[in-house]
Amino acid sequence: MARIPPPVATVRAAVRAALTGLPGPVLVACSGGADSLALAAAAAFTGPRVGVPVGLVTVDHQLQEGSAVRALAVAEWARSAGMAPVEVATVAVGGRTGGPEAAAREARYEALCSVAEQTGAAAVLLGHTRDDQAETVLLALARGAGPRGVAGMPYRRGIFVRPLLDVARADTRKACAALGLATWDDPHNTDDAYARSRVRAAALPALVTALGPAVVANLARTASLVAADVAYLDAIAAEALSSARSDHGLSVAALRELPEAIRGRVLHAWARELGAPGTALSHRHVAALDALVTGWHGQGPAALPGGIHVARRAGDLVRTDL
Amino acid sequence: MARIPPPVATVRAAVRAALTGLPGPVLVACSGGADSLALAAAAAFTGPRVGVPVGLVTVDHQLQEGSAVRALAVAEWARSAGMAPVEVATVAVGGRTGGPEAAAREARYEALCSVAEQTGAAAVLLGHTRDDQAETVLLALARGAGPRGVAGMPYRRGIFVRPLLDVARADTRKACAALGLATWDDPHNTDDAYARSRVRAAALPALVTALGPAVVANLARTASLVAADVAYLDAIAAEALSSARSDHGLSVAALRELPEAIRGRVLHAWARELGAPGTALSHRHVAALDALVTGWHGQGPAALPGGIHVARRAGDLVRTDL
Repeated sequence: MARIPPPVATVRAAVRAALTGLPGPVLVACSGGADSLALAAAAAFTGPRVGVPVGLVTVDHQLQEGSAVRALAVAEWARSAGMAPVEVATVAVGGRTGGPEAAAREARYEALCSVAEQTGAAAVLLGHTRDDQAETVLLALARGAGPRGVAGMPYRRGIFVRPLLDVARADTRKACAALGLATWDDPHNTDDAYARSRVRAAALPALVTALGPAVVANLARTASLVAADVAYLDAIAAEALSSARSDHGLSVAALRELPEAIRGRVLHAWARELGAPGTALSHRHVAALDALVTGWHGQGPAALPGGIHVARRAGDLVRTDL
Repeated sequence: MARIPPPVATVRAAVRAALTGLPGPVLVACSGGADSLALAAAAAFTGPRVGVPVGLVTVDHQLQEGSAVRALAVAEWARSAGMAPVEVATVAVGGRTGGPEAAAREARYEALCSVAEQTGAAAVLLGHTRDDQAETVLLALARGAGPRGVAGMPYRRGIFVRPLLDVARADTRKACAALGLATWDDPHNTDDAYARSRVRAAALPALVTALGPAVVANLARTASLVAADVAYLDAIAAEALSSARSDHGLSVAALRELPEAIRGRVLHAWARELGAPGTALSHRHVAALDALVTGWHGQGPAALPGGIHVARRAGDLVRTDL
């Protein structure tokens, strides 16, 4: 028996670990790029060996010439690799708010959720690698996203699982080459109009040059350590939010008792509950709420995104714009 | 009255906030570089106005030609600015373990502590800026230092206070220029042999080019948010460590009950207590201890730096190398 090339073995081992313990059939989300194609090939190989049916879904964003043809080619390859079901999801990105990256991502995740539901999939595997994770952490740091941003992409959230978060992008390319799979290079990935492309092309390489190649794995490891902290603190904050509720809003006395790390999370979660959109809600807004608790000098209401106003009234934080 | 140049006002405001609330006389640690000279000038101006006596200490590391002359010049300037006491601390960096940066830093902090004690200072002000903080966070990320590293330098720890952590380095230069103060440029700061110099000269500028100038302030803000988390989690872990103690070491049953974020900290703190040197103790060692708790399959002892071994024995983690 021929020796399995090491990058192929690396990807398969990561996929086997992910599939073990999943309760039912899975779908691989595959663009045809090296990352998700290596993931799909490994899942097609490993699934039958661990008793997990593996299908594939490819999303046609209709943003580039030839995207429909490429989606069909990916689907055809998947069928030839024995994957089932195989679905092409065609989405319309236009008409959404936010930047082009965010709009495409939102449309893609909606389509993946919908196909997963229709096909009864227990999980959707995504091809994000350790390099993607490092880029995500740098982008989060750069926009001041705080601990939640530094935590990076989760290994698992809802139906989405990212088996390759600790696999190097270079290994997915090598795995595809070793398996003779033709990969597609998304021109968006090298388009300087996108912040992530600029991080990938310039910022992360500069960090590697300055500090050595271990930077990428170290960024990803920091993300997983911070993620464990964030998960724990979020759980504590959820309890603290319940305890701080009063008849009209939140009790200032209860909030004041909380440590800073928890109080900020409670106020953030409450603002979300009041309807402040998560994308617009920033540290500045939470700080304004916090000032009503810890820096009280009779100031007026704090303004939150979405036209929401919160004031301090008789020992409570109260929504006042209704 | 002449208008105060904005950078001078910025530095003075930061120093005034730091001096207010300090219980007694302070020393400014000043190398003669723009950061610490701007800090010293602002403290010399502000101290008398808020009733805080302000002195200065400059450290001669004896590592560069002319360092003694420079130290004397800084001291002379401080006396002319009305600071008292003014001290020159001469240190020997050679013969210490670790890299040259670490050795110089260790010698410097020892000298500052010693001068503070001799002069009865309540605090020593350090000139680290927002840019230094951003560099510190990037360096920590790059070596995988985890949340504790991303938390960056604390605003206050022990006798050390960093009033300029939210002031741009450029503002300290402009403040010195506006006040007509000649500053010294440490050649180490541009010496590519130092990781920090490479981050300063190449990695951080690449990040700014890719993502915009707000990156520096955002990195510093992320640090302060993560620092609040780390402080809270450390306090919880200290209590959890007490509760997990058994007659022979730590109770596996008690450790298993802890959430991941706390258990890692408890094991780290306990390893330090056993004598593992903090500089050598890494995530890998803590993971080996954790495996004795959560991945137990009869494996042998975990090896920690400093020749320390920990085994699982009858429901306890126990030190076995004594």
